[in-house]
Amino acid sequence: MSRDHIVIVGATGAVGREAIRILSQRGVPQDRIVALASERSAGTLLNIHPQPLTVSPLTTTSFDNAAVAIFCASADVSRTYAPIALAAGATVIDNSSAFRMDPLVPLIIPEINGASLFSGSNSSIAHRPAIIANPNCSTILLLMALEPLRARFGIEAIDVATYQAVSGAGAAAIDELLHQVQAHAQGTSITPEVFREPCAFNVFSHDTPTDPHSGVNGEERKMIDESRKIWSDSSIRITPTCIRVPVVRAHTQAITVTLKSSAKESQVRAALLAGRGVHIIDDRASNSFPTPLKAADIDHVLVGRIRPDPCDPALHSGQSKRWCLIASMDQLRKGAALNAIQIAEHLLPRIMSGTSRAERTTPVPA
Amino acid sequence: MSRDHIVIVGATGAVGREAIRILSQRGVPQDRIVALASERSAGTLLNIHPQPLTVSPLTTTSFDNAAVAIFCASADVSRTYAPIALAAGATVIDNSSAFRMDPLVPLIIPEINGASLFSGSNSSIAHRPAIIANPNCSTILLLMALEPLRARFGIEAIDVATYQAVSGAGAAAIDELLHQVQAHAQGTSITPEVFREPCAFNVFSHDTPTDPHSGVNGEERKMIDESRKIWSDSSIRITPTCIRVPVVRAHTQAITVTLKSSAKESQVRAALLAGRGVHIIDDRASNSFPTPLKAADIDHVLVGRIRPDPCDPALHSGQSKRWCLIASMDQLRKGAALNAIQIAEHLLPRIMSGTSRAERTTPVPA
Repeated sequence: MSRDHIVIVGATGAVGREAIRILSQRGVPQDRIVALASERSAGTLLNIHPQPLTVSPLTTTSFDNAAVAIFCASADVSRTYAPIALAAGATVIDNSSAFRMDPLVPLIIPEINGASLFSGSNSSIAHRPAIIANPNCSTILLLMALEPLRARFGIEAIDVATYQAVSGAGAAAIDELLHQVQAHAQGTSITPEVFREPCAFNVFSHDTPTDPHSGVNGEERKMIDESRKIWSDSSIRITPTCIRVPVVRAHTQAITVTLKSSAKESQVRAALLAGRGVHIIDDRASNSFPTPLKAADIDHVLVGRIRPDPCDPALHSGQSKRWCLIASMDQLRKGAALNAIQIAEHLLPRIMSGTSRAERTTPVPA
Repeated sequence: MSRDHIVIVGATGAVGREAIRILSQRGVPQDRIVALASERSAGTLLNIHPQPLTVSPLTTTSFDNAAVAIFCASADVSRTYAPIALAAGATVIDNSSAFRMDPLVPLIIPEINGASLFSGSNSSIAHRPAIIANPNCSTILLLMALEPLRARFGIEAIDVATYQAVSGAGAAAIDELLHQVQAHAQGTSITPEVFREPCAFNVFSHDTPTDPHSGVNGEERKMIDESRKIWSDSSIRITPTCIRVPVVRAHTQAITVTLKSSAKESQVRAALLAGRGVHIIDDRASNSFPTPLKAADIDHVLVGRIRPDPCDPALHSGQSKRWCLIASMDQLRKGAALNAIQIAEHLLPRIMSGTSRAERTTPVPA
């Protein structure tokens, strides 16, 4: 048998389902897509075109024909099965946090550091299976929005507050939000199970544990550490506050960035306009800017409200080092499943090829 | 007739209803509360204890027995009727933006600059009727949370992202959110009318107009200008991003403040703990911090997630000038109606007296 299977581990979760949907949208032949989940979820039918795909149980022999294994389950599942997939000859793209900060594992956003997969210490990766880590969704949104400015002007510091969809906590969290909202309409209430706080009509500090010493939570720590690794710049200062909002599937961030060199607004806009995977929505006259509903189900990161810090004392010159913007991104697509698939496409274009490149990107909103 | 009426203009709106509720909770005799609204809303019965209060139409003779007139309607209504109320002998507390930046009108948060009402150019106010402006809700939340730090350490700069309830846009906005959520549960959708963007399961840049030149929206401009006026400090740098979230009645903010002098965490916490009108919720072990649901219906501003900027290069010394926190506040109470009533109580304690001071503050959450 030829080694050409694309295996999705955790195929019944929110990210796993999205990964299979994207492979199907990209025209990857269905007989090459293998959907795996726990014994409990095995047998589930995934409703994709042209015919439903049956989920198989994850076992130690699941990777025998796999060219690529995309892990969309917990860090524990990745720690157990990623080495097995690797030993079986598959290239592993891991969505979990298990290997992200491992110095031997590349952490990749293709538009930003995809080229690093073929250079330096990684130059063997193109020739033999490896584990590649997919960054946390909040890291991907932040870096996709700012990479065009970093490449052009350099970045000293970032202040960022997040407005994170519940989908980041999985399919059960989406159900919890929808059920709580329904209960509210009926005048009843539901005890939270996925989150400690109610998520309907509420916002709350991110549900990752808060470090007792520093007061920084897990999501914020990931944003700091992963950004420094991806940008290969440990001097960059990142001050994040991560908060969940009652939104289903796209994240938003309010970002203030301090550049290394001053820029005019026209220069900042030109850089962002040329940014790969970035689409600008910034209509001041009609107050139309990125929102999570506009970002849902599309591949681009939406950027808008581009403006200099109004209190920058240097602003009278028409230039500033401090720029504000907001950005939104589908957390399940570019924030997870899509980025993982793009890594695989970048590394193994022949294996991942389905349909033509032109059809690979969703249309952006007008 | 004695001049002892407390008149609420805009009594059928979200803020007006809350003002009457607070007066009633504070034991102000009902025969001294006058509820006014437009001709269209006149006759409405407001459901307060011990018996419903009938809303009267606002006319040019409405203020003849008024000691205090609290305006909870539009800026246009304030511009037209506040001078009439003043001429009739009433002290005007104005919730609208009409007079906030007028250099002759004090802009007051009693805990912060209440004393200024009796000093300097304002020293005549205690003796004759005047117009006092109530700040914007986002300004009140930001300054209530930071005043204890400003008083102790001084403030150089503030970065703030808001998570604003729809109630700030009035009762119709609350209805719009609840109807959109219900429609979503039924698989239908409703065209937005109050906001340009859908508010259910979405977040969007604040609905005030965005300045075409600076890119700053009206809410952000208010935060900058009003904070500088209240703190009498035009050098303070404030970089706000204002965003609406699908929350009914309390605002939240993610704040990073740069102090003038370095502080230890114990000093920052001690200052906030002693802050007037501030209550700390900051349990790292159980991830319990301020949320808008916890802040709803209470008088205190909730503060938590108090931590130094994790990327401050000076942090190794155990001290930092940069501190992060989140804060939540009932937008209809301390953000509007309560602050206005507190101004009136500060200025005219005899007129406003109802029940004992001890009963004036709602209990804070455990």
